Amino acid sequence: MDNNISKQVISRLPRYLRYLGSLKDKNIERISSRELSGIMNVTASQIRQDLNQFGGFGQQGYGYNVEKLYDEISKIIGVDHIHNCIIIGAGNLGKAVAGYTEFERRGFIVQALFDNNENKIGNAVRGIKIYGMDSISDFIAQNDIDIAILTVPSAAAKDIAEKVASEGISAIWNFTNTDLDIDAECVVENVHLLDSLMTLSYNIEKNG
Amino acid sequence: MDNNISKQVISRLPRYLRYLGSLKDKNIERISSRELSGIMNVTASQIRQDLNQFGGFGQQGYGYNVEKLYDEISKIIGVDHIHNCIIIGAGNLGKAVAGYTEFERRGFIVQALFDNNENKIGNAVRGIKIYGMDSISDFIAQNDIDIAILTVPSAAAKDIAEKVASEGISAIWNFTNTDLDIDAECVVENVHLLDSLMTLSYNIEKNG
Repeated sequence: MDNNISKQVISRLPRYLRYLGSLKDKNIERISSRELSGIMNVTASQIRQDLNQFGGFGQQGYGYNVEKLYDEISKIIGVDHIHNCIIIGAGNLGKAVAGYTEFERRGFIVQALFDNNENKIGNAVRGIKIYGMDSISDFIAQNDIDIAILTVPSAAAKDIAEKVASEGISAIWNFTNTDLDIDAECVVENVHLLDSLMTLSYNIEKNG
Repeated sequence: MDNNISKQVISRLPRYLRYLGSLKDKNIERISSRELSGIMNVTASQIRQDLNQFGGFGQQGYGYNVEKLYDEISKIIGVDHIHNCIIIGAGNLGKAVAGYTEFERRGFIVQALFDNNENKIGNAVRGIKIYGMDSISDFIAQNDIDIAILTVPSAAAKDIAEKVASEGISAIWNFTNTDLDIDAECVVENVHLLDSLMTLSYNIEKNG
């Protein structure tokens, strides 16, 4: 596998997986790059180019085997195995994320929430327990946690991120407004909801 | 202005605005494409190319005037004026979105939430009132609402989206798991949190 896959291709992989997953659910066995192109809103040649970078799972005149392609992309994305997650911040957003069963179906299992609000500690969201912030370190060490989902107020983001990164977390999924740039051992994905809202706004202007 | 701006450039505009906004907050008056490149993690020549598409606000040897560039991109994105929004679905996610003061600062003003849970109707989130679903149509008509933020269960998404689109909403910001594809008069932006989580997962694999 080519290690220099372009960012643009990578950004399309989750969408490929999403569409292939829905084809699998419908028991569709194979699909041509042309059909996939119609669903994905990307040209057929672009799709062939993208998938060739991963070894080219297609066959001339046959197209792609949906399940095989799904499995291969799952491996590349790393969703062919479980990721244990914790949510730090049990406010509305933290609880909303804990409520997404879709993440669980893809192997992202939320094992606990953490908050410093005494009234929340001991409660549960969809059966997932809320603990005090002071027990994060022990929980990470004892439960093979690799992803921390950050839904705390922005002001607290940097300190908490550095703390969990130093404790061996592999990745931080950051919902706060603070762009995190911590050491290279820990991967950070910043969720910028405002960027999505601005894209919407741009399209309103263009449409108007 | 060129109407055929590529999707990739458009996807960078909110980031440009975000960074320029933080420069403005620090009273920085001008910036070179090289400096902007360092912050944005995009090559300087890419930045010049991007901004040239909108008329090229830079001057050789001077760089870009931060405020002017910020204002121009604001106009292009359409955040130089107010957008009145409603949130449909006052669950954890709806309440979390209502709580983001960041959206308000960019002119996206949430005027009301709607839910069909009798226990929620009449309550408020950050002073924003929760109404019953049966009053959506009147509220849209009377309050110049242009964006509906959809945070209902996925099963309800399509019907509600079609209803508000037919009532003259300009855009739907869709947090549900259902890809919406409604008529061309109404813009839809789907928020795919799972795609972001899968990108994170990909980067863990690559890092590992």
